[in-house]
Amino acid sequence: MSLPTLQLKSQADRRLRKGHLWIYSNEVDVAATPLKPFQPGQQVEVIAANGKSLGIAALNPNNLICARLVSRDNRYPLDKSLLVHRLKQALSLREGFFPAPYYRLVYGDSDLLPGLVVDRFGDVLVVQIASAGMEAVRDDIIAALVQVVKPTGILLANEHSARELEQLSLYTEVAYGEVPEQVELIENDTRFLAPVRTGQKTGWFYDHRLNRARLQQFAEGKRVLDVFSYIGGWGLAAAQAGAAQVVCVDASESALEGVRANAQLNGFADRVETAHGKAIAVMKAMIEQGEVFDIVVLDPPAFIKKRKDHKSGLAAYRHINELGMRLLARDGLLVSGSCSMHLATEELESCIQGAARHLDRQAQLIVRGSQGPDHPVHSAIPETEYLKALFYRIYLP
Amino acid sequence: MSLPTLQLKSQADRRLRKGHLWIYSNEVDVAATPLKPFQPGQQVEVIAANGKSLGIAALNPNNLICARLVSRDNRYPLDKSLLVHRLKQALSLREGFFPAPYYRLVYGDSDLLPGLVVDRFGDVLVVQIASAGMEAVRDDIIAALVQVVKPTGILLANEHSARELEQLSLYTEVAYGEVPEQVELIENDTRFLAPVRTGQKTGWFYDHRLNRARLQQFAEGKRVLDVFSYIGGWGLAAAQAGAAQVVCVDASESALEGVRANAQLNGFADRVETAHGKAIAVMKAMIEQGEVFDIVVLDPPAFIKKRKDHKSGLAAYRHINELGMRLLARDGLLVSGSCSMHLATEELESCIQGAARHLDRQAQLIVRGSQGPDHPVHSAIPETEYLKALFYRIYLP
Repeated sequence: MSLPTLQLKSQADRRLRKGHLWIYSNEVDVAATPLKPFQPGQQVEVIAANGKSLGIAALNPNNLICARLVSRDNRYPLDKSLLVHRLKQALSLREGFFPAPYYRLVYGDSDLLPGLVVDRFGDVLVVQIASAGMEAVRDDIIAALVQVVKPTGILLANEHSARELEQLSLYTEVAYGEVPEQVELIENDTRFLAPVRTGQKTGWFYDHRLNRARLQQFAEGKRVLDVFSYIGGWGLAAAQAGAAQVVCVDASESALEGVRANAQLNGFADRVETAHGKAIAVMKAMIEQGEVFDIVVLDPPAFIKKRKDHKSGLAAYRHINELGMRLLARDGLLVSGSCSMHLATEELESCIQGAARHLDRQAQLIVRGSQGPDHPVHSAIPETEYLKALFYRIYLP
Repeated sequence: MSLPTLQLKSQADRRLRKGHLWIYSNEVDVAATPLKPFQPGQQVEVIAANGKSLGIAALNPNNLICARLVSRDNRYPLDKSLLVHRLKQALSLREGFFPAPYYRLVYGDSDLLPGLVVDRFGDVLVVQIASAGMEAVRDDIIAALVQVVKPTGILLANEHSARELEQLSLYTEVAYGEVPEQVELIENDTRFLAPVRTGQKTGWFYDHRLNRARLQQFAEGKRVLDVFSYIGGWGLAAAQAGAAQVVCVDASESALEGVRANAQLNGFADRVETAHGKAIAVMKAMIEQGEVFDIVVLDPPAFIKKRKDHKSGLAAYRHINELGMRLLARDGLLVSGSCSMHLATEELESCIQGAARHLDRQAQLIVRGSQGPDHPVHSAIPETEYLKALFYRIYLP
């Protein structure tokens, strides 16, 4: 089989040779191989300026990142056979670590499958496709997943904003078997029902699992506030570990319905309350009412989605962390999360240290949490790392 | 009580106001308050250029870091009373997290006790004093520890190289009660005898505890190599978690005797071997013999002790990581540690990615481990963070 070629400019192969997978449109020698004639999702052989082949990429002429390497071996394009191979490698990592089949099975670039995410809820898989290259082999993806994982249902949750950059339409549909409205999962030792069809992203956020397990080691007998709770990942983990009382705050009433249903499911509904409203407004009201917690968890959505939001986003992180700190007892635990790839860990630390000095509190960083093993970081692609969970002891010195 | 004053230059208070504790000798207004007349360890009131008091510091005219803040309140110098207060705060953090009394009880600056480290082994405490300020209140430290912790013995293990910078003599002595040659500790679920009088540092390294617990989640049925094993912290944790075979490598025969004794103590001596020799020589010989492991742990001593060692140290990290990788099976786990404060995490990652590319392996960072909660990071003192434990899956793509 012979693929069309994509000719790179001089030096444009360096990042790829170091292990990265992305090709930017300004790195292509468009005089030799113009981008426009290519179809979105088409596979091409990538040729360095010195004439050497770098492997096969899936291309999208409409995006700034115009191609992503799918294979370093010309003999193996992205097809069902390569997908099966990569899925087996991905599954092997997860099965080696997690005792039960609840995890992110495929994490895009890090599993050498750029543009593909698969979350596993037992026998149900929820798939996100974020690139034209993966959309073009959609049927192969479903067939490969069926072969490797033998699921009873596969949902395509293709609503991700990255699809717009790739000029792909947004849709959700059942691609295989049957997928219920809600699927059960077990995280650490807590059960949850995740709304895979109507919830956020794939319905659940597996990335914080180890950080939530860490929270459990601090939670016994404590009063815990879970801000931006969604369906209760942090708060209910704390309740499961023996927290005396948990309050979950979210702006979505349906998320809070999920919190209550999940609390019921685990048999500790009597220790879990919900507070509906925007995080800042609810926290301010709690401060006025003199509420005090032993542990405050802040797990906001990405305040910095794009680089241009950096300054306002930083101010937002500083603000919620200071409010969270004001709700802590004299000697309390602040768990401060961020899923903004554009927020450096040091910047979040600096927000928290600034807030602590402003309130005359002492801050000890006691746990530096990151994304779990089912969200591996590709060692040559820093963009695959985004999650922080900083545990601070905040006290009066 | 009135203390002598230490006058700072203009701007020299900024770091202190942000929360740091150290004062460098070139920040002192020596025209107003010359350093020479002060006694090593003497306490002084620190005055900013604008005349405002910043608190009390313990001073050493012989060191580049000539003073460390011990209190931000002029009324409370470093004495037994303040020591008791700080020890209680430090104990509260540890008791809130660890179910049993085996941990670093005091971690210097991070516990607002600059120059003091205390490791707890049940009823025995091992103390390291690293500053003239703490040496001057040595008797108060012992008395405060006796009051707060009620130990049966306290050992002063004052052999730390930092003492030389402070012109303090090196010595080990029992300062209270009785201290046996070896003390027992439990880390995670494994028992160890630590040679507190003759071993490295305080006899044990509690800082990697959570990282070793993480290793245990990967270890069942695996063949594990533990390089720079000391008395077996990593390797025996893996054996406890069901590793099929463990090989511990160390240049010290007495450390390996410790490995064997500790394996016996836990009842799995039949699954633990030792290999005596320098790490690089042993690993090279193993490569020649075609040895293969599922997991390789590298926990070397600090290769970069001072900034000037940076380049040679970096090369050493790169070298051992490449050797470790070559001993891995097709799909293996590399656990790469560093306790060099002068090695940035990104630099260690870069060593590993470089080695992986060189060997045509794929590297996924699956756990980013750091020092445990009994080694808290002072949020304004980056120097209090030093430990890395990076878990990489290394495989053929």
